[in-house]
Amino acid sequence: MRRITILGATGSIGQSTLDLIRRAPGEFSVVALTGGQNIAQLARDAREMRAELAVTADPARLDDLRAALDGSGVRAAAGEAALIEAATMPADWIMSAIVGVAGLAPGLAALGQGTTLALANKESLVTAGPLMLATAAAHGARILPVDSEHSAIFQALVGEDPAAVDRVVITASGGAFRDRPLADLAHVTVAEASKHPNWDMGQRITIDSASMFNKALEVIEAKEFFGLDPNTIEVLVHPQSTVHALVGFVDGAMMAHVGPPDMRHAIGYALNWPDRRALPVARLDLAAIGTLDFAHPDPARYPALAFARQVMAAGGHSGAIFNAAKERALDHFIAGHVGFTAMSTLVARALDEIGGDRGGDVTLESVGRWDHLTRQHIDRLAAA
Amino acid sequence: MRRITILGATGSIGQSTLDLIRRAPGEFSVVALTGGQNIAQLARDAREMRAELAVTADPARLDDLRAALDGSGVRAAAGEAALIEAATMPADWIMSAIVGVAGLAPGLAALGQGTTLALANKESLVTAGPLMLATAAAHGARILPVDSEHSAIFQALVGEDPAAVDRVVITASGGAFRDRPLADLAHVTVAEASKHPNWDMGQRITIDSASMFNKALEVIEAKEFFGLDPNTIEVLVHPQSTVHALVGFVDGAMMAHVGPPDMRHAIGYALNWPDRRALPVARLDLAAIGTLDFAHPDPARYPALAFARQVMAAGGHSGAIFNAAKERALDHFIAGHVGFTAMSTLVARALDEIGGDRGGDVTLESVGRWDHLTRQHIDRLAAA
Repeated sequence: MRRITILGATGSIGQSTLDLIRRAPGEFSVVALTGGQNIAQLARDAREMRAELAVTADPARLDDLRAALDGSGVRAAAGEAALIEAATMPADWIMSAIVGVAGLAPGLAALGQGTTLALANKESLVTAGPLMLATAAAHGARILPVDSEHSAIFQALVGEDPAAVDRVVITASGGAFRDRPLADLAHVTVAEASKHPNWDMGQRITIDSASMFNKALEVIEAKEFFGLDPNTIEVLVHPQSTVHALVGFVDGAMMAHVGPPDMRHAIGYALNWPDRRALPVARLDLAAIGTLDFAHPDPARYPALAFARQVMAAGGHSGAIFNAAKERALDHFIAGHVGFTAMSTLVARALDEIGGDRGGDVTLESVGRWDHLTRQHIDRLAAA
Repeated sequence: MRRITILGATGSIGQSTLDLIRRAPGEFSVVALTGGQNIAQLARDAREMRAELAVTADPARLDDLRAALDGSGVRAAAGEAALIEAATMPADWIMSAIVGVAGLAPGLAALGQGTTLALANKESLVTAGPLMLATAAAHGARILPVDSEHSAIFQALVGEDPAAVDRVVITASGGAFRDRPLADLAHVTVAEASKHPNWDMGQRITIDSASMFNKALEVIEAKEFFGLDPNTIEVLVHPQSTVHALVGFVDGAMMAHVGPPDMRHAIGYALNWPDRRALPVARLDLAAIGTLDFAHPDPARYPALAFARQVMAAGGHSGAIFNAAKERALDHFIAGHVGFTAMSTLVARALDEIGGDRGGDVTLESVGRWDHLTRQHIDRLAAA
């Protein structure tokens, strides 16, 4: 039985991972599950899976978690140190699905035990790509991408020579406001921004799809994970979300990963890798879909893509600054403090105005420091 | 230097192969080139490439070929035995690009020398798939597919476990009459049928695209080459000819080969395999294409696809009968003896009316016998 830990078990990715594990009875044993505020879900899953440890990130919820796990035999813990403990308990496969930069430290801890890390947390590679890769290399750990786009690229590269790659095309649905008049974007509501045309995901990532901040993270992530020249990475708007990515080779051929927009594809691929096994996903019917559309993204509608270029060119801590800026700007949008397009304005200012040691060594501590500074800066800008 | 022979050097595939060889000076030495009636082209290429041998399939043209090669140092020969000689002269890579069932014997001869055979001749696998594969296995030869669809499938399978494949989708442009009213098809002209919307190919294969007899061959060929269950092979009409094939796996993922409709992709892949090297083909711009369409083929418009199912179910010599019937029906269409839709009627009758030893051992001789009988039958039907 393969020992599995899920960091971020109560979110969309974590729940899909548990769904796949449930469908393969007897194949996996769950070591640890971690979550945030959804104590009931966390406790229910930990009981069902007979996990050894359940962790809530919030120390204030430890008593609730203890109560919910009473008599189950599952140990309860809370806080950052407990998250690291969950990540360091021996496991064969660890899902890193905590949302945001908070996922970095547990992911690094998991790599430190030389395991296979299924990486759904985008911020790990965006804020600390070289550190993640160096940690994996130092401990003989393996990172498998779980974002659908990166899984698609990974699958298109199976058996191919990476030196023969000459471009990577990442597709984007265009999000909730793809067809909205540009002039309306300043006044769209949070509720409108939270409706994704294709993917069923959490609220934050859905809004990040509408702004393409999510795609910007993916571009940076692809650059880091696959060691790509930024100029070889393209983004195309593809409303049907059926072609997840294409890898172009020097001979002009492109290998594409095509499938319904269902995260269980990428999760299942990482779970079963290097094998492919049947997954409970819909069979793609291209004739029923009928038409696949592709277009260049409008830079005025999606300024986030230019930020990705800026971050890839600058390197150092600019990924951490960018990520913190867009996370905090999103907080302010969701809270109703700023409008939808103001998020880009805030992020642009953060990238331009926060100087400092961008080029210095990127460590867990330095990422935290720049993350904190950036959030403070965004708060000041949002309040102004 | 790799030693290259091209069987069918003066046709579309052969000329594209020579184009690629010209672009890699010093890497290849040409052993033999064969052609048909285009003596001037054959002689010009043989001189330029300093081939050892040039062969015309037509013994009546031997004197012309000798004259055209006078003083070149290239030996001239003609006829079936000379084609076999060309195929058996030691070479590292042999292109089988003779059109029609005439390509079978030279292809088998090439496999007999344990070389790598780049197989563009569709009829080899359609009429004698098991014989081709057994001959390759017996002599340690390798077959690389050169049809764009089969090259696409082959590329999508790189690094994958064939046991994890659960379907293969071959695309078809729909040909010259995709959007013609069905009632008009009986009266379309040869000139109209000879205009392909996307691919620049010879006349016969272009008409076979309009009728989908070509796609029927490809379906049978895919079944033979990749050892597929016929029920796992689908055909989709895809007017843009940009997605050449998709391979679906048990996990629901599909890997697709995407590129401009240019045969040099598939030829170059076979020439450079297992490497990928730069090819003189246009860079695909999906945003410029904008839309990719997919639809189920209309069985009434393309009865050829049902014939492919019939042939795959029957096995034995039914592939040889089908191929001969559709080749001869095409002769009669081009000659103006029968209309466009009558080709399908003739082929359907041949498949139904020609009985005999379909299940017996398939040999070069037996294929030739059934081919001959079928052509006679089609001639009788066309004259009636």
